[in-house]
Amino acid sequence: MDDKQLNNWFNKRKDRKKQMNSKSLLEGLLMHNTSVLSTSITLLESSLKEDKIVSKELIKSCLPYSGNSIRIGITGVPGVGKSSFIEALGKILLAEGKRIAVLAIDPSSEISGGSILGDKTRMEELSNMENVFIRPSPSGKNLGGVAQKTRESILLCEAAGFDVILIETVGVGQSETMVHSMVDFFLLLMLSGAGDELQGIKRGIMEMADSIFITKSDGDNITKAKLASREYQNALHLFPPNPNGWIPKSSTCSSTKGENILKVWTIIKSYENHTKINGWFLKKRQNQDSFWFHETLRDLILSQFFNDGLVIEKIQKIENEINKGNTTSFQAAEEIYQAYLKNNNGANI
Amino acid sequence: MDDKQLNNWFNKRKDRKKQMNSKSLLEGLLMHNTSVLSTSITLLESSLKEDKIVSKELIKSCLPYSGNSIRIGITGVPGVGKSSFIEALGKILLAEGKRIAVLAIDPSSEISGGSILGDKTRMEELSNMENVFIRPSPSGKNLGGVAQKTRESILLCEAAGFDVILIETVGVGQSETMVHSMVDFFLLLMLSGAGDELQGIKRGIMEMADSIFITKSDGDNITKAKLASREYQNALHLFPPNPNGWIPKSSTCSSTKGENILKVWTIIKSYENHTKINGWFLKKRQNQDSFWFHETLRDLILSQFFNDGLVIEKIQKIENEINKGNTTSFQAAEEIYQAYLKNNNGANI
Repeated sequence: MDDKQLNNWFNKRKDRKKQMNSKSLLEGLLMHNTSVLSTSITLLESSLKEDKIVSKELIKSCLPYSGNSIRIGITGVPGVGKSSFIEALGKILLAEGKRIAVLAIDPSSEISGGSILGDKTRMEELSNMENVFIRPSPSGKNLGGVAQKTRESILLCEAAGFDVILIETVGVGQSETMVHSMVDFFLLLMLSGAGDELQGIKRGIMEMADSIFITKSDGDNITKAKLASREYQNALHLFPPNPNGWIPKSSTCSSTKGENILKVWTIIKSYENHTKINGWFLKKRQNQDSFWFHETLRDLILSQFFNDGLVIEKIQKIENEINKGNTTSFQAAEEIYQAYLKNNNGANI
Repeated sequence: MDDKQLNNWFNKRKDRKKQMNSKSLLEGLLMHNTSVLSTSITLLESSLKEDKIVSKELIKSCLPYSGNSIRIGITGVPGVGKSSFIEALGKILLAEGKRIAVLAIDPSSEISGGSILGDKTRMEELSNMENVFIRPSPSGKNLGGVAQKTRESILLCEAAGFDVILIETVGVGQSETMVHSMVDFFLLLMLSGAGDELQGIKRGIMEMADSIFITKSDGDNITKAKLASREYQNALHLFPPNPNGWIPKSSTCSSTKGENILKVWTIIKSYENHTKINGWFLKKRQNQDSFWFHETLRDLILSQFFNDGLVIEKIQKIENEINKGNTTSFQAAEEIYQAYLKNNNGANI
């Protein structure tokens, strides 16, 4: 690289920096510019210190323009047909004049190296539409990081004028609990089958659902799907009522035939209406804010402790002692805590 | 009080102290002395520093003699008939030559001022038996403290030769999750009723059950109870399989008629056998030890942080800002964390 090339490079970089200030990004978002939205989300995924400062400013400046969407979580095992479902639902929403953002969270993407939405071709039609924004899982080593980036992405999408945010996740890990705590409505997609419908779904997830839909209810599968739906309806009926007064219903749908997809949207709108009238819509969002605030604080405090060299060393040793029955869980914990305090000169007491 | 009285008082106290050393208590426990067991549990509930030292030593010295019981959690809403059930089950166990300890956890006892087992008359017959030890909920301001005391009580009971430990709790708060993570087998008692059986039971609890029994299945109630049992069986069937290979079953019983109570015990023994053969019995206990170790450590660290004066003050202010939409959960958490570190001179970094 000679001097001229070097100068060019510096100037380009300066230009990029200039564009990357939070004011101009906000302007772009408010003009519903999806490429600015894309850049903004990339920015908040960046680990560079300077990028972090800009993205922090950007998020803050977006706050007055956010919150006006309906946030919908969609979960189900791989193969349940989430992409086809979202494509079918998306078309209905577009016809109603909605602007749709799809954020996908795949907890396995770090391991498999690919995201569930890695190739957009899975939502071929939708991804080419004007008022649609599709973004795969923000990468992150831990669920807390992914949660933060997804929550911030929601705010950016809202500032960019998207009024329906679909958050897609695979219902097999811990991600669905995380998604549940950042959406207004949680939809569980299920496959019909001989009594083993829930095999791949994590325990507890059914109780989080605001509605269950059995997918692929077409052709020979209709009877089986309806039977499964009735079974789930009975099971849902056994759970205690939601404090918000909403009664989750189970039904069937077919993405390829486009059947009952409108019903899903009708249910979601009815839920929105129901909870906005009784005040739970806002209350839930405030509870979620409070939850993530405390969750993040706890994460920060605990990771400081559990990354302490002395603590790491002592934990390994003492867990052996517990397993051997030489000490109890409580005495072991107390011992490590005291050693940690002593090592830090009791500065935090 | 004159000098003589004072001397007497001192000497008595010295005697008490002498008896209250961990060696003599251990000896008493190993001789299956229930009044020593009672004293020992009182000791671990004490907040006096000197008592804490003795109880710590005692627990440690009990460890080689503990672990040889089957620990059974029994939960159900008030009115389901837990006491009558335990009385009926207890008689069967006594007939088999077992020694039975009943520990009761009532999360509401702090508020109501009374414990579910406050008056032992509710298990009148059982409480007068030779090989039975009944103890109400250890008091404690937080669930973590109650958990620790209950877990330690289990160890003491085991050292005192009790081979069946029943831990009773009301399935309406958070206590059942706590109990679930300290027992080998978790039994859920339910009332029959028209579809509203679970109304009072916390969401998620059904998924923790190793078996469900519908109580009061006698007289006019038999048909309803059997119907309820079938409904639960269908619902259980929808949950994914336990990793330990155990299939939870639902059934009916009557404590007053003594019907199917033996069946409960047969199921528990079959569970014990099943999980001891496939290694899950021990594995589960080790997982529980590890869980409580980490849980206790986290509690210690977090309570240090959340009791910090500066933190308390700042949290109140910043939660208002979050609710007003002036900042995000994540930025607020980061802000408080940094303020805390700064205030502690970064000593822990």
